[in-house]
Amino acid sequence: MADLSRKQCNLIKSLFTRHGRRKTGLCVCEGVRCCAELFLAAPELVKFTVCVDSFQADFLTGEVFRVAEHEFAKLTSTVNSQGILVVAARPEYKGVKPEDDFILALDQVGDPGNFGTIMRTAKAAGLTEIWFTAGSVDPFNDKVIRSAMAAQFSMNLQVFDSLEYLAEAARGYGYRHFFLTDPHQGQSLYSQAGLYKKSVVIIGSEAHGVGSLAGADRVTIPMPGNFESLNAAQAATIFIFEYVRRIST
Amino acid sequence: MADLSRKQCNLIKSLFTRHGRRKTGLCVCEGVRCCAELFLAAPELVKFTVCVDSFQADFLTGEVFRVAEHEFAKLTSTVNSQGILVVAARPEYKGVKPEDDFILALDQVGDPGNFGTIMRTAKAAGLTEIWFTAGSVDPFNDKVIRSAMAAQFSMNLQVFDSLEYLAEAARGYGYRHFFLTDPHQGQSLYSQAGLYKKSVVIIGSEAHGVGSLAGADRVTIPMPGNFESLNAAQAATIFIFEYVRRIST
Repeated sequence: MADLSRKQCNLIKSLFTRHGRRKTGLCVCEGVRCCAELFLAAPELVKFTVCVDSFQADFLTGEVFRVAEHEFAKLTSTVNSQGILVVAARPEYKGVKPEDDFILALDQVGDPGNFGTIMRTAKAAGLTEIWFTAGSVDPFNDKVIRSAMAAQFSMNLQVFDSLEYLAEAARGYGYRHFFLTDPHQGQSLYSQAGLYKKSVVIIGSEAHGVGSLAGADRVTIPMPGNFESLNAAQAATIFIFEYVRRIST
Repeated sequence: MADLSRKQCNLIKSLFTRHGRRKTGLCVCEGVRCCAELFLAAPELVKFTVCVDSFQADFLTGEVFRVAEHEFAKLTSTVNSQGILVVAARPEYKGVKPEDDFILALDQVGDPGNFGTIMRTAKAAGLTEIWFTAGSVDPFNDKVIRSAMAAQFSMNLQVFDSLEYLAEAARGYGYRHFFLTDPHQGQSLYSQAGLYKKSVVIIGSEAHGVGSLAGADRVTIPMPGNFESLNAAQAATIFIFEYVRRIST
């Protein structure tokens, strides 16, 4: 078993930056459950694994480098590391016709935890598409991967320069209704019958809300408590699982 | 205007520890929106405010200490601080009869972000009670306060040694149905008609799931995607807003 080279160590460190990921087309996945999901979903994308000497797991295949704990600590981005990280290639965009009843779109969601949690929740709901606009966080940022439990390796991600371009692409696939989710105005999601019928549901960032889009309708989540708007990931979860409720009842 | 004393600096630092909060009955609230909510909800609990020289906001009342940015950086727990923190007293438990249609209970939810997000979401939904078991994170931990947007200052929080004690207290107020939320088994929440009728809905931790409780029924969230269980805060959000849907349609 070869030792992890200095070059590989530098590669790993570079993958915690957007520049490093862009240059190499690689990313880092950390944590036991997250790496397990990656191996399950896309083993062909795994380049190599680094783990602490004591680490044991059934799912490990391919090239595995074992290092001492203090060396691992220098490579990981997490404070309470679980002793495993995987270097993987970003999946290539497949360019197949979307099959989802509706397309979930994120408009400039910059928070890694929110973006990742939304992906994880969308995957749990059976969705396969995540479309987003430039200005969002990189979906292969290490924090996004952890929050998403590696869902990005088995979903179809597409980025667009603007909501207009996104809408144009959606129309090309027959998605004709557009909904901007708004914390304060619009029809209640619970009474909007067409919400998931060949539509695009657009979630905005917590900081800036959702952008504008000609011809789109606004939908909102009723808030009896009249408190602060919801966290973006919570709002997205409510929209995603209202869809699940409708298809399962 | 007096300067912030060394004693006050040390007090603030101590409030980032459980021990320090317990000893003094105080806590720290950070960030603009979070502090604004605290001033709005419970101005009587505010002891004093520390902010950077340039900070301006309408809501500031009471004793305000202004410090240089590099001094503020030593006091705050956040990396991208917004230049304001408030030292506040923990609200006293009011001991009034709960009015909520159902009581939301958290069983050993240890993650500060999850606990806080659940509180924020519950408040947005109009709930006033958050009951929880020992082993959960301290609700007045600074991270919980930030995630909750200070919702804990205007809700009724009660801690119990076990789910059994929690259930006993709930029965005393006429809450007679108990639901354990389970990622894998039980009746779908969407078909459980009695879910929010004088009941207690118990959310477990992501790490350990929900505990057991005699006489309780299990309810689950259908997951068409068959992916990893949802994050605890996402699951709680789905349960909370299914309630909102039922009362608003």
